[in-house]
Amino acid sequence: MVKKAIVLLSGGLDSATTLAVAKKEGYEVVALSFRYGQRHSVELLAAEAVAEQNSVVSHKVIDIDLAVFGQSALTTSIDVPVSRSLEEMNESIPVTYVPARNTVFLSYALALADSLSCNDIFIGVNQLDYAGYPDCRPEFIKAFEMVANLGTRTGVEGEAVIKIHTPVIDLTKTEIIKLGLELGVDYSKTHSCYSPDEAGLACGVCDACSLRLMGFAENGIKDPIKYVGSHEG
Amino acid sequence: MVKKAIVLLSGGLDSATTLAVAKKEGYEVVALSFRYGQRHSVELLAAEAVAEQNSVVSHKVIDIDLAVFGQSALTTSIDVPVSRSLEEMNESIPVTYVPARNTVFLSYALALADSLSCNDIFIGVNQLDYAGYPDCRPEFIKAFEMVANLGTRTGVEGEAVIKIHTPVIDLTKTEIIKLGLELGVDYSKTHSCYSPDEAGLACGVCDACSLRLMGFAENGIKDPIKYVGSHEG
Repeated sequence: MVKKAIVLLSGGLDSATTLAVAKKEGYEVVALSFRYGQRHSVELLAAEAVAEQNSVVSHKVIDIDLAVFGQSALTTSIDVPVSRSLEEMNESIPVTYVPARNTVFLSYALALADSLSCNDIFIGVNQLDYAGYPDCRPEFIKAFEMVANLGTRTGVEGEAVIKIHTPVIDLTKTEIIKLGLELGVDYSKTHSCYSPDEAGLACGVCDACSLRLMGFAENGIKDPIKYVGSHEG
Repeated sequence: MVKKAIVLLSGGLDSATTLAVAKKEGYEVVALSFRYGQRHSVELLAAEAVAEQNSVVSHKVIDIDLAVFGQSALTTSIDVPVSRSLEEMNESIPVTYVPARNTVFLSYALALADSLSCNDIFIGVNQLDYAGYPDCRPEFIKAFEMVANLGTRTGVEGEAVIKIHTPVIDLTKTEIIKLGLELGVDYSKTHSCYSPDEAGLACGVCDACSLRLMGFAENGIKDPIKYVGSHEG
């Protein structure tokens, strides 16, 4: 019997690469995305494109009541910081942090996994590029894995423990892109920018664009997505 | 400064009593309820009445996309079991278990707490009456507390650790009602039934009604809510 896995899919390159790893490991993939009032809803289109291209079993898009997340640069109109160095990005918790977002996302993934008696959840968190996000750290993932195994039917009665897979957690953006290219990820379908223009073009200067462009440059190839104006990869 | 707490409020007697404990301990209460396709939506009206009577700072009702919960007797048309003994109720995981429900609920409470820089969350879980629910056990709550402290700004940078308070977790229904009466809880506003009739009257025979009626009887008083037909407290 083919094993099933839930893969959290934002449409960014970390989650697209994570999905490719799950497929490579032989899982049938149920992709899960969220609509939570994010300003860059273009990422949901990217998630759909990535899911479709990878022949997932199904792609669920869950509406999340954004009222609960309060203020964050990703859901409100606080300015997204631009042109920062890696050092600046890693100072304290960024304004782009959304309160408990990964806990909420993983909870939904867990509910879905439990309803499907599925033991495997993949999430594309990364602790190097997002060192300031408390919910991207391995100790957080480990704690959530305990919650998963203690708080569900599948965890308590299932044949195997529930595992939260984080295949890109320790990789640099350059290593993630290298891995994805080896696995055949089509990065032209992915989207990373925090501040796309109205046509959905990436800004090239927010933290997400900066990291992405650096990752492609270090792999010696051109980022296949389009950027506003002159910020080409 | 008055401390603020998030209190998960279903409108049942466990959560109404938990809210009274939070107030007694001096917290300003932000009540949080969920609309998740539950068949007994009359419980949301009860939650509103309980919140109003207890002068909470605010009462948030969050919509949860029920698609994720799959099949359960509380959200679909599976028959709710009736007239069971305590022993029968505690055999394995009941059909009324909703996959990862308390994890999802606590995640939202955590997101709200984090956005308010609040360290205290109250939840009226009980492990005696609902021994079959994995997400009503103290070890689950402890694991979620770790998630809360590792995965949020408030947990990482806050002055105090985040605490998940479960004041009724070890109490029998009889003890919960006794405590609530001492704290002035008006149980006429609460609602417990899994299978209310169209007018919202409690059935008197589902597990929730059975436990509730037993609890009032053992306190030597009449349950102040109305029941269908002859199933009076």
